[in-house]
Amino acid sequence: MGGSGERPVTLADVGEDGLVASVITVAARGAAAGRGALDWLRVGPGDDAAVLALTGLVAASTDTLVEGHDFLRQWSGGHDVGVKAAAQNFADVAAMGAAPRALLVSVAAPRDLPAEWVREFAEGLADECARAGAVVVGGDVSGAEQIVVTGTALGVVEGAAPVRRSGARPGDVVALAGVTGRSAAGLALLQADARRAGVPRGALRVVDDHLRPRPPHGAGPAAARAGATAMIDTSDGLLRDAGRVATASGVVLDLDPAALRADDDVAAVASLLDADAQEWVLSGGEDHALLACFPAGSALPEPFRPVGRVLAADGGESGVRVGGEAWNGAVGWRHFE
Amino acid sequence: MGGSGERPVTLADVGEDGLVASVITVAARGAAAGRGALDWLRVGPGDDAAVLALTGLVAASTDTLVEGHDFLRQWSGGHDVGVKAAAQNFADVAAMGAAPRALLVSVAAPRDLPAEWVREFAEGLADECARAGAVVVGGDVSGAEQIVVTGTALGVVEGAAPVRRSGARPGDVVALAGVTGRSAAGLALLQADARRAGVPRGALRVVDDHLRPRPPHGAGPAAARAGATAMIDTSDGLLRDAGRVATASGVVLDLDPAALRADDDVAAVASLLDADAQEWVLSGGEDHALLACFPAGSALPEPFRPVGRVLAADGGESGVRVGGEAWNGAVGWRHFE
Repeated sequence: MGGSGERPVTLADVGEDGLVASVITVAARGAAAGRGALDWLRVGPGDDAAVLALTGLVAASTDTLVEGHDFLRQWSGGHDVGVKAAAQNFADVAAMGAAPRALLVSVAAPRDLPAEWVREFAEGLADECARAGAVVVGGDVSGAEQIVVTGTALGVVEGAAPVRRSGARPGDVVALAGVTGRSAAGLALLQADARRAGVPRGALRVVDDHLRPRPPHGAGPAAARAGATAMIDTSDGLLRDAGRVATASGVVLDLDPAALRADDDVAAVASLLDADAQEWVLSGGEDHALLACFPAGSALPEPFRPVGRVLAADGGESGVRVGGEAWNGAVGWRHFE
Repeated sequence: MGGSGERPVTLADVGEDGLVASVITVAARGAAAGRGALDWLRVGPGDDAAVLALTGLVAASTDTLVEGHDFLRQWSGGHDVGVKAAAQNFADVAAMGAAPRALLVSVAAPRDLPAEWVREFAEGLADECARAGAVVVGGDVSGAEQIVVTGTALGVVEGAAPVRRSGARPGDVVALAGVTGRSAAGLALLQADARRAGVPRGALRVVDDHLRPRPPHGAGPAAARAGATAMIDTSDGLLRDAGRVATASGVVLDLDPAALRADDDVAAVASLLDADAQEWVLSGGEDHALLACFPAGSALPEPFRPVGRVLAADGGESGVRVGGEAWNGAVGWRHFE
């Protein structure tokens, strides 16, 4: 069917079964390349459900990307969206201290979407799965007016207990694996496209980081092994997610602004766009760095670096401070506001 | 925020965090009522990921409902969509011989969707979870132009090996748990609304069965324990899904039309609408009955009843026959065709 050359082959040409089969073929390539022995994958994609032999506690999380809200097709190709869908789901699992193992993916899309977009999307999924040490084990395809991608990640808490948001204690060190602000800088650069020509070439990497985040998945299990008391994926901005840890733990997270300076790329973009680089670092979302708390004196596992400390909540007021000043909670990404 | 009485409270009023919290509260009610001891649920909704202590093999499947494609808001309320989203995902897990345990749910929806719709949706999820013996362990909410609901079900293969589509052998009995055709009859009745007044009252139950399917979840693990050789959730129509078992197993499934007669409700609706009741039974989708094959002489577990037998594929031609006549594969639901 299709393939005439006059117009791209679409989902309507390929049909649901053909499309799922194509995605599975690509994902299986990732499975073969990614993890070596897959003897734990007892039934892969293609039956009613996948069947996995997972030893230990299973971490599970789901997250969705919506065209026009979470990405624009003019900026994000299928590969970008595939990487991002896998990356943000694995980051949530890693934030519990679990090693990513498996991904299930649902794609709802218009019938005139080029089948090539979906093939590239599957390649993106497979690439990020390989980076995370996981495989695609199931999927679903539906018709819709816009592209809506939902991923569900499964991971294994190997040995150690899961790391929750609620375990931070006064005296703990607050540490960050990965950087924040680069995704926000990249988004700002895309939105100010006309000025992009003036950006130093290196700084353009923030656009890649916005389109295809690279969370430090391995840092999650490493933090659990090192005795982390609390952890969170900073998907909605550093301050907002730090606030969630503070609230769940009933403590104050006092962040050190000197440890949270914008890097050279982010500073260059902010300078060019007359924007506030520090605002991007503190409140920009979608970088998927891991924020964790460790008992004082812990040897922080790579690539964690200290960015603050945990204080007792004076008079019951949990929250976040930056350099001792209370953050008012006014910034951070919200989906309906 | 909202609540003025002039217009319904919407997602935009409640915000993402408020909405997720509300869904979690309702789902937690289901958790408390549903399964008694939940000591296997180590971390429930509200952290980056749920953490589950699942012993044995884990079955995982994902499926999506799209407004305008899989349901219409004029016919399906939030409760209906919640039940359906949970039911169809648990049916896929049950079809591997696994007992449903957990559900993760993503909702993408317009910002002007009444928050009440989402609350009813959460009630529907909780009700179907209680019926299946499972709980909602995670969720996500996003903005979108139309409602797109993705569920991911996790189940446990307790002891027995998973039942795949590929194990049917010549001589096996083909058996069905649940009925087919009622969902298609219900859909036809909704589409022919003007004539609904003439339908016998009892037959109107097919509309409920279309809006809120009731798959026989327990029959899946029961079939596995009874030695089922192959199994499938008949979500896309009996013949089409039987064809998938036949192809995967390299056999012929010869179905007995006498065992697949329309029930009185379906026959009454077909008569009223001048439709073909047998066509609904053989090709109508979304009933989520379980089709399984058992070695000859097996005691079929409740509520399975024999509907055919497995024959060798003559000359390599696997496929489905009805009363000895080959089915040409022309009917059955496809999402993009």
